[in-house]
Amino acid sequence: MKIGILGGGQLARMLALAGIPLGHEFVFFEPASESCAAVLGQHIQAQYNDEAKLKQFAESVDVVTYEFENVPVAAVEYIETFRHVYPSVKALKATQDRFVEKNMFANLGMLTAKFVDIQSRADIDNAISTLGLPLVLKSRLGGYDGKGQHVVKSADQVDDIWQDIAGIPFIAEQWMQFSREISIIAVRNQTGDIQYYDVAENVHKNGILHTSHNKTADNSAAKAREYAKQLLTELDYTGILTIEFFDTEQGLVVNEFAPRVHNSGHWTIEGAVCSQFENHIRAVANSPLGSCESRGVSCMLNFIGELPAANHYLSQANSHFHDYNKKPKPGRKVGHATLVASTELDLAKQVSAFINQG
Amino acid sequence: MKIGILGGGQLARMLALAGIPLGHEFVFFEPASESCAAVLGQHIQAQYNDEAKLKQFAESVDVVTYEFENVPVAAVEYIETFRHVYPSVKALKATQDRFVEKNMFANLGMLTAKFVDIQSRADIDNAISTLGLPLVLKSRLGGYDGKGQHVVKSADQVDDIWQDIAGIPFIAEQWMQFSREISIIAVRNQTGDIQYYDVAENVHKNGILHTSHNKTADNSAAKAREYAKQLLTELDYTGILTIEFFDTEQGLVVNEFAPRVHNSGHWTIEGAVCSQFENHIRAVANSPLGSCESRGVSCMLNFIGELPAANHYLSQANSHFHDYNKKPKPGRKVGHATLVASTELDLAKQVSAFINQG
Repeated sequence: MKIGILGGGQLARMLALAGIPLGHEFVFFEPASESCAAVLGQHIQAQYNDEAKLKQFAESVDVVTYEFENVPVAAVEYIETFRHVYPSVKALKATQDRFVEKNMFANLGMLTAKFVDIQSRADIDNAISTLGLPLVLKSRLGGYDGKGQHVVKSADQVDDIWQDIAGIPFIAEQWMQFSREISIIAVRNQTGDIQYYDVAENVHKNGILHTSHNKTADNSAAKAREYAKQLLTELDYTGILTIEFFDTEQGLVVNEFAPRVHNSGHWTIEGAVCSQFENHIRAVANSPLGSCESRGVSCMLNFIGELPAANHYLSQANSHFHDYNKKPKPGRKVGHATLVASTELDLAKQVSAFINQG
Repeated sequence: MKIGILGGGQLARMLALAGIPLGHEFVFFEPASESCAAVLGQHIQAQYNDEAKLKQFAESVDVVTYEFENVPVAAVEYIETFRHVYPSVKALKATQDRFVEKNMFANLGMLTAKFVDIQSRADIDNAISTLGLPLVLKSRLGGYDGKGQHVVKSADQVDDIWQDIAGIPFIAEQWMQFSREISIIAVRNQTGDIQYYDVAENVHKNGILHTSHNKTADNSAAKAREYAKQLLTELDYTGILTIEFFDTEQGLVVNEFAPRVHNSGHWTIEGAVCSQFENHIRAVANSPLGSCESRGVSCMLNFIGELPAANHYLSQANSHFHDYNKKPKPGRKVGHATLVASTELDLAKQVSAFINQG
């Protein structure tokens, strides 16, 4: 099957690496001239409002998916006049606006941080009285990896922050005390089958995912799966879906979801029977799903900005090194490594030895 | 690193699929217009005697390897004037002529089937008296997958066979009674480190590999490793090397070796920590080797001629499906599937259920 992917970054690259062994071919629609996925298929370089190119792209493939949730909805709706796009536009719309997304969670009865829409300077003051301090102001549109977020610790800061964000759609969110951040990755195919990976425990640094580590027996797994199932069903979803949670004294609090393969699931390449990338391709290509069962316990370490010396990672027996072949740039995800062990204890020993030697 | 591969078939394809995640890029030199590897890099389509194209190919990459042992030696020697080629020309020469190969085995003290060179009709008669009947006539050059082989069961057949083979270099080989066929895959890098995969037990059908299945604790493993180490050292070898054996009452009899990744090691993609493909790329790229340790027990099933219905293989929890995206053709290797289980017993159950449902 010929599969079109909107976006040509590392997620598209790893999707193609998983799909090519199944016999699929790939076309990437990517506005940038450089695309680390392009080596795995055809690269159509055009803007998302270029209808002629979108049509050419759609007509050159059998089905379309996307690697990131900030693809313009209009582009996806236009492509849908020619080919099916998975996951659904409904999922894309819900994830592009934090206010819509949070309302959806709330309507489904999921526990979320309390939130209010911010339209004016006065709304922030009201939010401070309603939600207390500190609170987090988050851009409704286009935020990821901690971008477009401001933590308000005292009322004094509001004037300065308002200068930055006036006119931009924002929400205010209650500050959550949490013991850890976890995510669940689930997949649903076109016949409605659903499978779940182990939940992953995630550590962020400077708002960017630093490590992800699957928990084979986690107290929160059942609740996380229940939420994932609700969302997959609500959105009549096809493909991989990720939900990020805060683990709090009140229970699992839904933070956000991503309608795509996710950085917190890169460990599944070596750490699960069938990776998130292969399962996304299987779902989009209308195939049976692969097993999400873990093969041991894994810890993924992100490389941000530039790659470390590869040989350190290549010389460790149970380490798997991934170089996205991207130019170094501060804050850019350029690669990752995954350590796989048979037990939590082994993994902890290996990770610690690894980092100390690094 | 930019890696050039002579040949653009499924082995080149799987090498590139393993090398791209490490950040490498690929150029394939492949005379045929169709190349199932070409989707993963640049395809230079030219004949092996086209020096201008060989030079262009060599100069476009950092290092060169090959996916099959029938690449003309002259082409490799010419490329070596520009770039290193791994494995060595010495290995290539040894494998291209069965007589040279068998003499090398014998000189290293390895147990082989008795053999004689066949230059004339009378040599066959002499071979029959020396080696007994049945015996096997094997083409010295260019044979693989059972091609260029004749089994002589009675002296009556010799006239007919001689008509076919007169003028072609052949050897006669003693017929071996064996309980099973096994192979070992080993890898050596540029600093001389050596690693070994589990031996695989192989079943052939019509001279073509049908199934391969790794044996985690095999009586013959130590001897197979010893032979592999001898050969790797003798040939000052870099990359993956495969040796095929007959298991006989006299012990392990060396049949032939291949200076490349091998069909009997496809199970290593999911069944070992680091696959034969990744380890070959690591060796060629002068990187540390990955672990050859098995992850459970695996059985690979070859698809010859045409692919079966993919969904049967995709719907089994521990099965991995590989479609080389090649046009169907009798006798052509078009894909494979690998089943992975935790124990021999589990694997046997799964394989049997699998084949019965197929």
